[in-house]
Amino acid sequence: MNTTVTKSPIIAKKWILLNNEIMTKDDEDFRLYKDKEAVRSYFLDYVNKNTVFFYTLKEKIDYLIENKYYVNFYEHYTFEQMEAVYDFVYARKFRFPSFMSAFKFFQSYALRDDSGEKFLERYEDRVVCVSLYLASGDLKRALEYAEILINQEYQPATPTFLNAGKLRSGELVSCFLDEIGDSLSGISYAIDEAMKLSSIGGGVSFNISKVRARGEAIKGVEGRSSGVLPVMKIMEDTFSYANQLGQRPGAGAVYLNIFHTDIEEFLDCKKINVDEKLRIKSLSIGVIIPDKFMQIAEADEVCYLFYPHTVYQEYGQYLDEMDMTSMYDELVSNAKVKKRKINARHLLIKIAQTQKESGYPYLFFKDNANRGHALNGIGSVKFSNLCTEIMQLSEVSDIRSYHEEDTIRYGISCNLGSLNIATTMDNRRIKEVVKTAMRSLTVVSDITDIKMVPTIQKANRELHSVGLGAMNLHGYLAKNFITYESKEALDFCNIFFMMVNFYSIECSMEIAKERGTTFKGFENSAYADGTYFDKYVAQDFFPVTDKVKELFEGIVIPDKAAWENLKQQVMENGLYHAYRMAIAPNQSTSYIMNATASVMPVVDTIEVREYGDSTTYYPMPYLNNDNYFFYKSAYDMDQNNVLRLISVIQRHVDQGISTILHTNSKDTTRDLAKYYIYAHKMGLKSLYYTRTRKASIDECISCSV
Amino acid sequence: MNTTVTKSPIIAKKWILLNNEIMTKDDEDFRLYKDKEAVRSYFLDYVNKNTVFFYTLKEKIDYLIENKYYVNFYEHYTFEQMEAVYDFVYARKFRFPSFMSAFKFFQSYALRDDSGEKFLERYEDRVVCVSLYLASGDLKRALEYAEILINQEYQPATPTFLNAGKLRSGELVSCFLDEIGDSLSGISYAIDEAMKLSSIGGGVSFNISKVRARGEAIKGVEGRSSGVLPVMKIMEDTFSYANQLGQRPGAGAVYLNIFHTDIEEFLDCKKINVDEKLRIKSLSIGVIIPDKFMQIAEADEVCYLFYPHTVYQEYGQYLDEMDMTSMYDELVSNAKVKKRKINARHLLIKIAQTQKESGYPYLFFKDNANRGHALNGIGSVKFSNLCTEIMQLSEVSDIRSYHEEDTIRYGISCNLGSLNIATTMDNRRIKEVVKTAMRSLTVVSDITDIKMVPTIQKANRELHSVGLGAMNLHGYLAKNFITYESKEALDFCNIFFMMVNFYSIECSMEIAKERGTTFKGFENSAYADGTYFDKYVAQDFFPVTDKVKELFEGIVIPDKAAWENLKQQVMENGLYHAYRMAIAPNQSTSYIMNATASVMPVVDTIEVREYGDSTTYYPMPYLNNDNYFFYKSAYDMDQNNVLRLISVIQRHVDQGISTILHTNSKDTTRDLAKYYIYAHKMGLKSLYYTRTRKASIDECISCSV
Ligand SMILES: Nc1ncnc2c1ncn2[C@@H]1O[C@H](COP(=O)(O)OP(=O)(O)OP(=O)(O)O)[C@@H](O)[C@H]1O
Ligand SMILES: Nc1ncnc2c1ncn2[C@@H]1O[C@H](COP(=O)(O)OP(=O)(O)OP(=O)(O)O)[C@@H](O)[C@H]1O
Ligand SMILES: Nc1ncnc2c1ncn2[C@@H]1O[C@H](COP(=O)(O)OP(=O)(O)O)[C@@H](O)[C@H]1O
Ligand SMILES: Nc1ncnc2c1ncn2[C@@H]1O[C@H](COP(=O)(O)OP(=O)(O)O)[C@@H](O)[C@H]1O
Ligand SMILES: [Mg+2]
Ligand SMILES: [Mg+2]
Repeated sequence: MNTTVTKSPIIAKKWILLNNEIMTKDDEDFRLYKDKEAVRSYFLDYVNKNTVFFYTLKEKIDYLIENKYYVNFYEHYTFEQMEAVYDFVYARKFRFPSFMSAFKFFQSYALRDDSGEKFLERYEDRVVCVSLYLASGDLKRALEYAEILINQEYQPATPTFLNAGKLRSGELVSCFLDEIGDSLSGISYAIDEAMKLSSIGGGVSFNISKVRARGEAIKGVEGRSSGVLPVMKIMEDTFSYANQLGQRPGAGAVYLNIFHTDIEEFLDCKKINVDEKLRIKSLSIGVIIPDKFMQIAEADEVCYLFYPHTVYQEYGQYLDEMDMTSMYDELVSNAKVKKRKINARHLLIKIAQTQKESGYPYLFFKDNANRGHALNGIGSVKFSNLCTEIMQLSEVSDIRSYHEEDTIRYGISCNLGSLNIATTMDNRRIKEVVKTAMRSLTVVSDITDIKMVPTIQKANRELHSVGLGAMNLHGYLAKNFITYESKEALDFCNIFFMMVNFYSIECSMEIAKERGTTFKGFENSAYADGTYFDKYVAQDFFPVTDKVKELFEGIVIPDKAAWENLKQQVMENGLYHAYRMAIAPNQSTSYIMNATASVMPVVDTIEVREYGDSTTYYPMPYLNNDNYFFYKSAYDMDQNNVLRLISVIQRHVDQGISTILHTNSKDTTRDLAKYYIYAHKMGLKSLYYTRTRKASIDECISCSV
Repeated sequence: MNTTVTKSPIIAKKWILLNNEIMTKDDEDFRLYKDKEAVRSYFLDYVNKNTVFFYTLKEKIDYLIENKYYVNFYEHYTFEQMEAVYDFVYARKFRFPSFMSAFKFFQSYALRDDSGEKFLERYEDRVVCVSLYLASGDLKRALEYAEILINQEYQPATPTFLNAGKLRSGELVSCFLDEIGDSLSGISYAIDEAMKLSSIGGGVSFNISKVRARGEAIKGVEGRSSGVLPVMKIMEDTFSYANQLGQRPGAGAVYLNIFHTDIEEFLDCKKINVDEKLRIKSLSIGVIIPDKFMQIAEADEVCYLFYPHTVYQEYGQYLDEMDMTSMYDELVSNAKVKKRKINARHLLIKIAQTQKESGYPYLFFKDNANRGHALNGIGSVKFSNLCTEIMQLSEVSDIRSYHEEDTIRYGISCNLGSLNIATTMDNRRIKEVVKTAMRSLTVVSDITDIKMVPTIQKANRELHSVGLGAMNLHGYLAKNFITYESKEALDFCNIFFMMVNFYSIECSMEIAKERGTTFKGFENSAYADGTYFDKYVAQDFFPVTDKVKELFEGIVIPDKAAWENLKQQVMENGLYHAYRMAIAPNQSTSYIMNATASVMPVVDTIEVREYGDSTTYYPMPYLNNDNYFFYKSAYDMDQNNVLRLISVIQRHVDQGISTILHTNSKDTTRDLAKYYIYAHKMGLKSLYYTRTRKASIDECISCSV
């Protein structure tokens, strides 16, 4: 057969054509410099023509405030103060280094007028607006924020960067998590919560492990419960409905404990050829895996799943909250606990199969997440979020009938931001950037008060959690001629993230000291009794490879003594934040920063993206025709090397890291299962989704020969 | 091609075989008497063998109470009192007259043990349990209830008949309705409501006309709203989830005003070949049609649909609550109201098309429902319920954020029951049966207090609405050799329902007098100023045909003077119930009563039903080989005759009547549209769904020749 797909002819835009010229080679080399021409044309021929013009800064500010686009900054600043920040930022002469960065910013972040047709902001304006808003009147602070932003040393996550300073907008927080109680009221509270949180721009994740399984009793009558799947259906529709007013689609995830008897149909919901009524398309799913399950799978022993309601009735405790290492045998031998026998290895393979088909489920290694969890004295970590980097304690609330008082317990609220490793290192400002970033994250937590969802409000009010992450790891390494899989990369990460940890603790301690307030329950944490610091005071963390020593030259690296000093100060003053670090995937924000996403390896050296009718190309940051070699695709790496690197970073991160597995179509489900086992062994707390590179056409041909 | 579908061989049960013998003819006639043998075998060979045996009545009652099946009746009765009711009921030697009645009862209503395997009740037991429960300690009343029930003169709707007296069960009320407010909180309140009401066994209907349309502004930003369809999706999933613990599936309906700009996609959601994401399968839909629309359609004038949020912003009043007759031109000429031009006739035809494809939408003729609405001084009727017979005032509540006080206004709560016209007439007990039935409906309203849904709670507490209906009209007429389409039928209905109205008012007045309480707002109703009675005091309602005179022989028919007297007493003492009558379709309960459903004509003379692997036959009540002629199928009738009969009944019914249109596949969409116009002209308040008889095989053959 000889069929050709012809695209309908459209008149391509100049900047797209220029961008596309990247791919037409000069001799041997891609014409990467064409991207600079593309971005220039994008501004001259499109952005500038579609930006509302103001004669003066004053006119602009007044217009934005009077027309209800911006909050009234005059309540906190004089015009001259604002002008100072604008001047500072514009003086930097920021230029987007690639077409894609500019495009992404103007497509998704720049303020438009209500008709949606004209831009009211450039990048500089957004930076100023965010800085003014977060500094709420403190000019010095505003300039500090403006500096890390315009230097692209730090990037707040989408909700903060998009919404800060706007009058009509969502909240600034990225991530919300909560437990679902096993009752109609509990479920309907969660639906309301999903709707409200999604509408203010956050991703929402629920632990549905407490909902009784299909076939369990309701009101004592056997066989009546329909289990978790129909609840997921309602959730999926709710997230499809409630979005951040078109700026971002709603996004939700649900986690189920692997010992819950609904686990198999939970996985099947992602199968493509499953019945429409059972299929869950847009909701993300994650599986909570305790050590015990991995043990059983490795030993290939008989495995039991448990009906959670019978467990609850027997022990007054949720299956999902039990320490399965100590309780498993007890549950197996208790005849009153209903159970079902399965083969644990088959279940792991089923997970792998589902991942190959759909990318899902995420895996959350529960006991890894709780081993060394500094707040074990207060509560335990039960599940994770939409991108598997948030890991905080939570507790299910008792939601009662209308007119009755609810007992509200901890949900989870976490606002995120990411350091740009490359600019931060190049500017030799780890300490300054981490501390300023922490300050800005703290402001977001402080000004956030989500009254309409009290479980979230409570968590944010009492725990002040934030999640500082990092991006551009691969870009930075490549720029410095270090391969991602090398021992230098391990060495670098070990030192860099130790330092981020150090300064984030120091900053949190300083805030606690300034205010005389710690997060609630600090006194029962491993920070308060000092045990958290054991590993840092026992030995120095210094670079071991020459290359990395060089990179850190002129930078003071905290030693044992510094850590000991920090420990004393923390024990004395406390910490303001219950949780501080979490490494997010940066699906959107890394484009604006012209950074490789998160701490993951790149997928393509030049990324191909389709927008509407046009194809655009995005060369990886710092790529030139000499350093191609250092941009090896994640698909071509040994995933064990990636997992090892992540495990080194994880040692310094109190929460989690979004870790994507990149596999090839030839990888078997057994290969995947081996990665799970390795990740678990290496102490990873979670695995985000699995991407599979589809056999390319060449491969197909070779197969068919 | 010659393909034969062979059913997998199963050993048919004796009672099924006997029932099936109905269809093998003796000479010319069906062997209808075989059904009596079938029901006998069903008891001897199945029911009795599967019923738990108790040595004594005492043992039975104690067992049921101790094992948490029944409420503790000892709190209200001595054993001897209960025994008296059991003895009274068992002494009647009730025998199901057809296999289907018995089968339906044991399949869906009889109490089973928690394993679901054994019966704990016979029909007599259910009757006693319901009577004892509703009489709550009043033995005389218990005997009265028991009498109308065991005589099959009156049948409470499913929730009451199924649940009364059981300890672990849903509520006793059939129908709930509410408005959805145009906010996320309003929508999530409605979802919670749907879940809770569905779980206690009621059907729930929502008016979604206040939700802004797709493309309208949210927070002033144009184009952001996604309209009513995604809200319906969430609703549909919610109803699929929350059921009455397996006894009955959850059921919900939504109504949309025909002037709402989402109306076309609302109708399209029922199309079979529409995109899965837009398709609404199990949720029922209804269209609210004001007079103005029918007028425009008849005159074939230009018609405008309005964007409801722009209307609300302009007038501070909901489009859905406006009197369109007076406001339409104003809305058309106001430039600030966004609108869209359509062809009204095309829209009527689209409705007809959708009905032909799916049976939906229901039609609710809003102005007909409010014309003569006795509570116009208090509020107006805005929409109807799952079966289009409930028509009461409602008002949208203000649901606010968590921690904030809501403003709760009227939802609608209505419990239903139906007179059996045939037994009631035969026993010459209209007055007694209506009054006892009204008492029992009143008890249900009094003991119902749905705290978890305050809008419903408020309506029930303050308005005490009930809905007394009727069934077996066609059966009764046929038994008396009256055809359904005759003038005798009109004559009979006119008198019978006038009398039901009379005694239900009298009873309501007596209760108000006894208790010194009226429904809230009585003083502003047309009952209080006496105008409601105008038509009854102006002329006598007496039979005009000989046949009907005969049927009423020996029965006192209230005359003008009686009505005048009643009017005076009502004006003096008030009424206890804001609404009293509503004629439901009796989907399930008419089988147990061996009655034709509601006031509709029969569809088949012998109904064929498939249960699992077996086919069963259900000859219509009173059918014998001599009166076949009187069981003309609804499909063979002129629908205008049916509509005319309903319009006569409607004059005496304060709420509505479930009216099904029966059409044939040769009827065009224009034919359907004509029925709508006729129904509207005749003052019908609603049309329930439309059934289309598919061309039978014979017809097909003749077509293809
Ligand atoms: N995030 C959202 N996603 C989808 N629909 C939404 C969202 N927010 C609001 N809506 C819909 O818009 C309408 C108004 O909702 P609501 O009153 O909660 O918003 P609001 O913030 O008060 O805005 P407005 O001032 O326009 O009413 C409702 O129909 C609601 O369902
Ligand atoms: N009507 C229903 N339809 C579907 N699921 C239901 C229904 N009622 C309860 N459930 C489910 O059963 C579980 C228990 O719900 P809930 O606590 O509200 O019921 P309950 O009346 O207290 O019964 P129990 O005593 O068994 O908890 C939850 O998972 C809930 O979603
Ligand atoms: N579409 C979305 N809607 C709402 N929240 C989202 C969405 N996508 C991601 N998030 C939230 O943001 C967190 C960080 O994801 P990330 O991809 O790093 O965000 P960013 O867009 O800021 O780069 C996720 O863990 C998730 O909770
Ligand atoms: N599956 C259902 N679940 C809950 N309520 C229902 C259901 N079917 C009908 N109803 C409610 O009962 C009312 C009366 O319907 P009807 O068919 O007469 O009930 P019955 O089963 O009592 O004969 C309807 O208007 C509707 O509100
Ligand atoms: Mg419960
Ligand atoms: Mg609003």
